[in-house]
Amino acid sequence: MSNKRKELKVSAIRNSTVIDHIPSEKSFQVIKILNLENTTNQIYFGTSLDSKKFGKKGIIKISNKYFKNEEINKIALVAPSATLIEIADYEVTKKEKVHLPNYIEKIIKCFNPKCVTNIQGITTKFKVIKDHKGTMKLLCHYCEKTMGKENIEFF
Amino acid sequence: MSNKRKELKVSAIRNSTVIDHIPSEKSFQVIKILNLENTTNQIYFGTSLDSKKFGKKGIIKISNKYFKNEEINKIALVAPSATLIEIADYEVTKKEKVHLPNYIEKIIKCFNPKCVTNIQGITTKFKVIKDHKGTMKLLCHYCEKTMGKENIEFF
Repeated sequence: MSNKRKELKVSAIRNSTVIDHIPSEKSFQVIKILNLENTTNQIYFGTSLDSKKFGKKGIIKISNKYFKNEEINKIALVAPSATLIEIADYEVTKKEKVHLPNYIEKIIKCFNPKCVTNIQGITTKFKVIKDHKGTMKLLCHYCEKTMGKENIEFF
Repeated sequence: MSNKRKELKVSAIRNSTVIDHIPSEKSFQVIKILNLENTTNQIYFGTSLDSKKFGKKGIIKISNKYFKNEEINKIALVAPSATLIEIADYEVTKKEKVHLPNYIEKIIKCFNPKCVTNIQGITTKFKVIKDHKGTMKLLCHYCEKTMGKENIEFF
């Protein structure tokens, strides 16, 4: 018998969510912000996979898990190109690109140390805006400072 | 056409290493100590998978990568149950359980802050020993303090 294996079979999962089209270099960050390092759910994960759209992409599949809006917002902030696919009883029940809402609450800190949200522990709230170049920015509802992607820090 | 998918096909990788039989809860730690979060090599990864031997296991497959002794020692410290499988041109060329050598050099810090290795930056060296209960311990060649698994910190 030959030892050659050109294909591997991975059992499909009855109920799961797939996060596809993650920019490859963001794959582990998506795992981190969703706290998947500490879950006991089954996870399949691939990174630096060939993708027609992105060159290289990451993909994450988690069993028995459907993400809440807050979690989807986190994914949209880190990996705006991602697609979310929900599978129930082996059937695709939902497939859509993640998108940012108009407002983001709770999940990220304001980068301004003097902002009342940092001093008094008030729930954060940001308006999602675009600058003149079309780049996504977050406008703090409280201190009115604007921060870019590079300043995002999750709670 | 039905949307049902009971199996997924994952392309096999021509040249790769598979780390199998990782205790599930150590899966992400193995990724971390091998610095795989920052590699551009293709990675497939699964955790909380059913295993006859371990209940739940993790598995990591990395393309175009064969681990050096120092890296294998790291795996053996974190996941002593792991099996290393090397694949070249789709053939299994090597399959063996990881094992600790008699001495471990370079990769871990001495937990004694007063140890000369910490003060003068000398390369660390530990003898791998067992205590009276058969538990693995590391005896520092320099300060002669003995540390357990819980004190291991990688450089």
